[in-house]
Amino acid sequence: MKIQTECVPCLLKRIIFEADQSTKDKELRTKVIKKTCKLLAELYDPNACSASIATKVHRLAYDTLGDKDPYKDLKDISNKIAQSLVPSAEELIKNSKEPLKTSMICSIVGNLMDYGIEGASNKPELLLDIFSKSVKKGLGYDDYDKLKKLLLKSKRVLLFTDNCGEVVFDKLLCRELKKAFPDIYLTLVVKGIDILSDATMEDAISLGFDEVVDEILTTGCFAVGVDFNKLPKELEKALEEADLIICKGMANYEAFSETNYKPIVYLMRTKCTAIANSIGLPLDINAIKVFE
Amino acid sequence: MKIQTECVPCLLKRIIFEADQSTKDKELRTKVIKKTCKLLAELYDPNACSASIATKVHRLAYDTLGDKDPYKDLKDISNKIAQSLVPSAEELIKNSKEPLKTSMICSIVGNLMDYGIEGASNKPELLLDIFSKSVKKGLGYDDYDKLKKLLLKSKRVLLFTDNCGEVVFDKLLCRELKKAFPDIYLTLVVKGIDILSDATMEDAISLGFDEVVDEILTTGCFAVGVDFNKLPKELEKALEEADLIICKGMANYEAFSETNYKPIVYLMRTKCTAIANSIGLPLDINAIKVFE
Repeated sequence: MKIQTECVPCLLKRIIFEADQSTKDKELRTKVIKKTCKLLAELYDPNACSASIATKVHRLAYDTLGDKDPYKDLKDISNKIAQSLVPSAEELIKNSKEPLKTSMICSIVGNLMDYGIEGASNKPELLLDIFSKSVKKGLGYDDYDKLKKLLLKSKRVLLFTDNCGEVVFDKLLCRELKKAFPDIYLTLVVKGIDILSDATMEDAISLGFDEVVDEILTTGCFAVGVDFNKLPKELEKALEEADLIICKGMANYEAFSETNYKPIVYLMRTKCTAIANSIGLPLDINAIKVFE
Repeated sequence: MKIQTECVPCLLKRIIFEADQSTKDKELRTKVIKKTCKLLAELYDPNACSASIATKVHRLAYDTLGDKDPYKDLKDISNKIAQSLVPSAEELIKNSKEPLKTSMICSIVGNLMDYGIEGASNKPELLLDIFSKSVKKGLGYDDYDKLKKLLLKSKRVLLFTDNCGEVVFDKLLCRELKKAFPDIYLTLVVKGIDILSDATMEDAISLGFDEVVDEILTTGCFAVGVDFNKLPKELEKALEEADLIICKGMANYEAFSETNYKPIVYLMRTKCTAIANSIGLPLDINAIKVFE
């Protein structure tokens, strides 16, 4: 996705959010704001990818803060809260006529746990109140049948994860996917380096993803979504060989929509107008959208 | 008020809003974003007044756009819509035990018509649906009795207006004020030069304010709220002689809260956390707050 005008204030809002998470030092926070505004003035270009600009701006913020992981605490809490919701999710999946689809919806609803942006719950606890209701509300855009057809003819599938918290539900999704399609070779892709509230190898291991996927790879670097200029060789190969790519969340859409990787399916909560308009979906819905 | 971190993305959001109002030229809008980000990087200083920084950033945006009044159409529509609500307002005032207080509430609710910021209605038409309900909801913070005591001992009162649209209700407020306190010399202050959706001398004249106030002055210059370094002599004198200053809206608070002018009363809808926290009020309420 090309950066939209509205991405600029949204990105700054998030930078301020992460500076607040990282430090109480007012001078340091001022420095972060001044430096990132200056960088945005230099980088802003309507022909540039939003994820790529965001990566550079967050890199500068992290470096200025001297903090490798401003979202550390939030990530831990998100995983804990999501884990406390697993029994509800399991119940919904068990009682569903389409367990895989329901696990996907759980995972999309988990995508509401996102921080420092509009349309998401800034406090992880908020998900506790709305989880079951949101899952029962289901999909506002539903390409599940298309997705199932693609899965039927796929041998190698990649799942690009997004935030901590929702990644707990991604594990249920992976399990259901392997249950429904045992012959698929399923590769999980997490972030190579801590960025925002995204899941990393540490999360994948501690959550026991090795029980439900065939392989775990990382994006290899510090990037909002994926930086295709810095792909580790294994991931590059996996992308070439994939019969289907499943992307969780908005940042992966921002990055992948600038590439030709297909078929691809986006599982997301549409939390901002920029992305909703770009992907052609209404705002604030749960969506499964396939591009073949 | 000192600028808060959250003012930075909010200000940029408004700059983008006014650029969108002004032109469809993408290159020009890009230029506005890059230049204002750069200026914000230079100006941002937690010890600076938010209104003063906003003035400079909007000045740059207007100059870059080559547009003296990007809000022209919105201002006209706002006045028209507010005028269509006058019969409802008059009815509420007529049936009220405290007509002056009710006229103040109408004027505060009119303050919901504000553009390009959160907590306000970006479309003037939205006020049509919520006006009577919002007036009936009344005040979330109520210093009206204190204000009445101040009015009782005041000879000269200044009313600093805010946006078009709400200024229509300010006229009813002025009329009720003069009805209740006929001996008060009431001075209306409008903006000296078009800025944002604020009312100017042109609005004051076309709305017939001469019928309800003793004098109309202007802030004399391009400024969010008031620029106290560029006060016209008449206004400077009026401020010195005033027994009470009535300020409509948030920008006037941002400017006046950095001065010692007292007693002062703010009539506002608290539309953002920065100002709500600064003035010590909850978010999204109608408020009359006196500082003596």
